[in-house]
Amino acid sequence: MNTAVLYSGGKDSSLMAVILDKLNYDIELVTVNFGVFNSWKPAKETAKSLGFKHKIIKLDKTILTTATEQIINDNFPNNGINYIHHQVLDTLAKKYDILADGTRREDKIPKLTHSEIQSLEDRNNLQYLNLTGIGYKTINDISDNLFKIQQEESNLNNSSDYEMEVRYLLQEQNQSICNIFPKHIQSRVIGWK
Amino acid sequence: MNTAVLYSGGKDSSLMAVILDKLNYDIELVTVNFGVFNSWKPAKETAKSLGFKHKIIKLDKTILTTATEQIINDNFPNNGINYIHHQVLDTLAKKYDILADGTRREDKIPKLTHSEIQSLEDRNNLQYLNLTGIGYKTINDISDNLFKIQQEESNLNNSSDYEMEVRYLLQEQNQSICNIFPKHIQSRVIGWK
Repeated sequence: MNTAVLYSGGKDSSLMAVILDKLNYDIELVTVNFGVFNSWKPAKETAKSLGFKHKIIKLDKTILTTATEQIINDNFPNNGINYIHHQVLDTLAKKYDILADGTRREDKIPKLTHSEIQSLEDRNNLQYLNLTGIGYKTINDISDNLFKIQQEESNLNNSSDYEMEVRYLLQEQNQSICNIFPKHIQSRVIGWK
Repeated sequence: MNTAVLYSGGKDSSLMAVILDKLNYDIELVTVNFGVFNSWKPAKETAKSLGFKHKIIKLDKTILTTATEQIINDNFPNNGINYIHHQVLDTLAKKYDILADGTRREDKIPKLTHSEIQSLEDRNNLQYLNLTGIGYKTINDISDNLFKIQQEESNLNNSSDYEMEVRYLLQEQNQSICNIFPKHIQSRVIGWK
């Protein structure tokens, strides 16, 4: 079955990929892009370093612009980022039989509720998986055990999270970014241990 | 770290064990027993057939009798079974650093809420994992791919679920079982494919 893991190059989506790979799924790592900034590059490099197939799927830019407007209005990223994730899953659900992402137990957004998952699966005859059965301590332990990890202050060139293209649009529009996306340390997988 | 998977010999807990094993955890499969009936036997056989370490841990019988009273009063198993699961986790959390079970996305009971998980982990400096990131279709596919599975009508000798010792107590007390635990098909893992 056609199996994709939504992929950012971070620990969570890398672990989701490893679990499915070890369970004999022939996975494709997918990084979506809305055509405003090449934020897929770090994910592509990480996928290559782990030896997984990787694909960039271009999606409709209006998903990103709608989310960015929402984020500017809210002066807060959560609703906009969650909107992107839902749109991405809905679109990719039409291309794949199995879709997975690295959402873990503590994640608030992006996240699907139980009924949103059921609806996504039923509407698209899909199987959806994530890491909500696992907490951050366990994910950190497993990742430290499996992966070489680089930790840096988050910038436009070291992550493939949805946030990056939103940041790019905000910069273009001379919007302040620091309030909306405070500086944080970005963990990126850069290979096997 | 000391890692246990609560183990019934079914597909869910077997899959949880396989995932942790493939992620390099040195796991111990644990079947609890309250000393009223040897319901641990199927789990022990299955664990052996998969080549995993297995341990039977005897717990206080009053956990089982309290749950059984509740089940008789409710004429419905859910609260009693959930009570047993919480008590089991609370007790084993004191013996292990990592505890996992096979709870999957659709399971209603036994199940821990997000705050119950946080409380369990924080009170015991524990890492708890389950399969709530995965739905039944995916678990069935993976299990069919990995395991030889035997399907039979559920009876006292082909499962190590908590239900079995409760049934035994109900029988002893001449309580009707069929209303509380309707007949169902029991899937049991009997080896690798």
